[in-house]
Amino acid sequence: MGIVVQKYGGSSLADADAIKRVARRIVDVKKSGHDVVVAVSAMGDTTDDLLDLANGVSPLPPAREMDMLLTAGERISMALVAMAISDLGYTARSFTGSQAGVITDSVHGKAKIIDVTPGRITQAIGEGHIVIVAGFQGVSADTKEITTLGRGGTDTTAVALAAALEADVCEIYTDVDGVFTADPRIVPTARKLAGVSYEEMLELAACGSKILHLRCVEYGRRYGIPIHVRSSFSQLQGTWVMSDPGLDGPEEETMEQPIIAGVAHDVSEAKITVVGVPDKVGEAARIFEALADAQINLDMIVQNISAAATSLTDISFTLPRTDGQTAMTALARIQAEVGYDKLLYDDKIGKVSLIGAGMRSHPGITSKFFGALASAGVNIGMISTSEIRISVIVDESSVGDAVRATHTAFDLDADEVEAVVYGGTGR
Amino acid sequence: MGIVVQKYGGSSLADADAIKRVARRIVDVKKSGHDVVVAVSAMGDTTDDLLDLANGVSPLPPAREMDMLLTAGERISMALVAMAISDLGYTARSFTGSQAGVITDSVHGKAKIIDVTPGRITQAIGEGHIVIVAGFQGVSADTKEITTLGRGGTDTTAVALAAALEADVCEIYTDVDGVFTADPRIVPTARKLAGVSYEEMLELAACGSKILHLRCVEYGRRYGIPIHVRSSFSQLQGTWVMSDPGLDGPEEETMEQPIIAGVAHDVSEAKITVVGVPDKVGEAARIFEALADAQINLDMIVQNISAAATSLTDISFTLPRTDGQTAMTALARIQAEVGYDKLLYDDKIGKVSLIGAGMRSHPGITSKFFGALASAGVNIGMISTSEIRISVIVDESSVGDAVRATHTAFDLDADEVEAVVYGGTGR
Repeated sequence: MGIVVQKYGGSSLADADAIKRVARRIVDVKKSGHDVVVAVSAMGDTTDDLLDLANGVSPLPPAREMDMLLTAGERISMALVAMAISDLGYTARSFTGSQAGVITDSVHGKAKIIDVTPGRITQAIGEGHIVIVAGFQGVSADTKEITTLGRGGTDTTAVALAAALEADVCEIYTDVDGVFTADPRIVPTARKLAGVSYEEMLELAACGSKILHLRCVEYGRRYGIPIHVRSSFSQLQGTWVMSDPGLDGPEEETMEQPIIAGVAHDVSEAKITVVGVPDKVGEAARIFEALADAQINLDMIVQNISAAATSLTDISFTLPRTDGQTAMTALARIQAEVGYDKLLYDDKIGKVSLIGAGMRSHPGITSKFFGALASAGVNIGMISTSEIRISVIVDESSVGDAVRATHTAFDLDADEVEAVVYGGTGR
Repeated sequence: MGIVVQKYGGSSLADADAIKRVARRIVDVKKSGHDVVVAVSAMGDTTDDLLDLANGVSPLPPAREMDMLLTAGERISMALVAMAISDLGYTARSFTGSQAGVITDSVHGKAKIIDVTPGRITQAIGEGHIVIVAGFQGVSADTKEITTLGRGGTDTTAVALAAALEADVCEIYTDVDGVFTADPRIVPTARKLAGVSYEEMLELAACGSKILHLRCVEYGRRYGIPIHVRSSFSQLQGTWVMSDPGLDGPEEETMEQPIIAGVAHDVSEAKITVVGVPDKVGEAARIFEALADAQINLDMIVQNISAAATSLTDISFTLPRTDGQTAMTALARIQAEVGYDKLLYDDKIGKVSLIGAGMRSHPGITSKFFGALASAGVNIGMISTSEIRISVIVDESSVGDAVRATHTAFDLDADEVEAVVYGGTGR
């Protein structure tokens, strides 16, 4: 049989009992004849506890030492999981990111995996061991320093290992049963998706769904690794993220790809409007250059003429709220140079996105979406689209109504409540 | 100026304030013009907490995974110390045992250092950084597995680094002001020693003094590294452990080596007597072979004829109490073969040792020692001697009286109480 890669997050490893439950799941897969490689996050609140310790000794800890500190978290959980497996009569070997051959660039705190050289893993598998790998961490190719991959990094570790080991599947265990058509806290009748394409999952992740990290999905798509998102608290089938889930989903009957995968929302963004920009070549470029210099990632950008009689224009864009202050400062610095009138800042906004690979071949999606929002009394602030996504900016207070109305308009509601949230949220 | 190696134990790193205080001490040495390399233990109770976690998932965790788990402790403390140094405006680089080039054999849980290849340390020093190294850990030469050095291992790490880096001194920071002529909890008037020879310190460590680990002193002696044992809670000079402390002690005036270094005691041993062993060639050897096969380290051994009329002998020996059950089982197994009469087990014993390099050239030490014990009403059970040590086994309940009487008889009492114990005990 082939190799199964699994990932367990912090909420699945909250305490000794949880670790023993995870060990039993792992051993069950081994018993069924597969080789098993597991990426683990730090236990429960470990990462937050370590951050507290760091803040206790230094208000601005060096990134290199922060990575050294945080990587202790996965070291602890992986050793404990290996011990629990041993207690069940199977042998396990734990490896740090560095030992597992997770090679990254050298950007501490948000390193990117550039290669995986799993020699020690394949040797341990060959010797019959179950392999446990510390998620979220690696070692830099040039400086040989310990690095971390940033939030959600263990998902990425798991998929990267699956790719390097040519695994049959990468199972991402979490505290919900899979990917839903909307956040069940906002839409109680949200349905669990049996399958979703990489492209749809990328759009869902980019638009506020927190179930899988963006880079993990990108990695899965690039190497064609089927990702099975499921709960570590139940035995239910979860959601398969793969190339063509409608036709190949291993559990579902063959069926047409559904038009809409789901409705995502995101209330982590703010909107800045630069009012009264002279409508000349190069002015907009100067504004975005200043924002790029300040290392700010923009999301949606809209330019519109503010008044027909003048030669002035307004430029609006959205960005992470956490970057709001930095962006306002960077823009204020170029006011004289660009000659704009004023800046408006609004962080009481939310983004609602309709996502579905089917929408490229189905006309009328946009009008049905906007119609649903209008019926719910939701005002649209900004619009952006891709081939498989339509996003709108609305008032933050309207986000719930907008998501529910859209979910209903596209017949996504389940007959009964399907979603169960089993625990907290891990890394 | 040269390189100073320092070691801080868990009680010196108990919390954020303690870590900041340690960071200030380190920076002070750097400011004075030295390069500084620091070996750290895990913070306060971290190791015990990790052991509790391990016991929570498995009653008998594999040693490899236990080492992987426990080494997280020093990783946390070294990163925090580096951060606290950075906060004082100096740069620090932390390194795991593996990164620091601490190469060991592959005996998990009590590995021995076989080499130190400090390339990354010397590079970091050359770049002007303060270097923080995780104590207690290394990487095995052949299997490249993470190992730990056993209890007191961070002392050994520090001295091994000092030897590899050809440091001027290895400062061992602890929670007492130095090495005392007796345990101040038993003899309140114990005096702090300004200097003590490696040989005396080895005997003190072997006979129950817990201030320095035996292997650390052995390492220091082999490479001629002066070890300065002192408190991290005061600025007092501590005790210098070196080749000829009486003549070269850097703080004391030139003086004759004192006759007696101190009185040590140990209540961790038990005594086993094999009664009625046939007095034939090979019978004793068979007994000690059985004990060696059971991996038991013996301390004192005494053989005496039990009754002149018979050809039987009794063999008594002491061993760690923790090995008592194993030894009794191993001996019971060979009773028929050896044909001894019975086994006696006594764990209500204590060992009191008088140690001093001066005693080899001073006759009358033994008689004065035994006279002091007799005056205090202490009965002697067993005796063993080396050139610079006399040890006796007494009833456990007599240990305090024996130590105090000996301390007074050899004029070791100070005029006032010198010892301050500042905190708990670290690894």
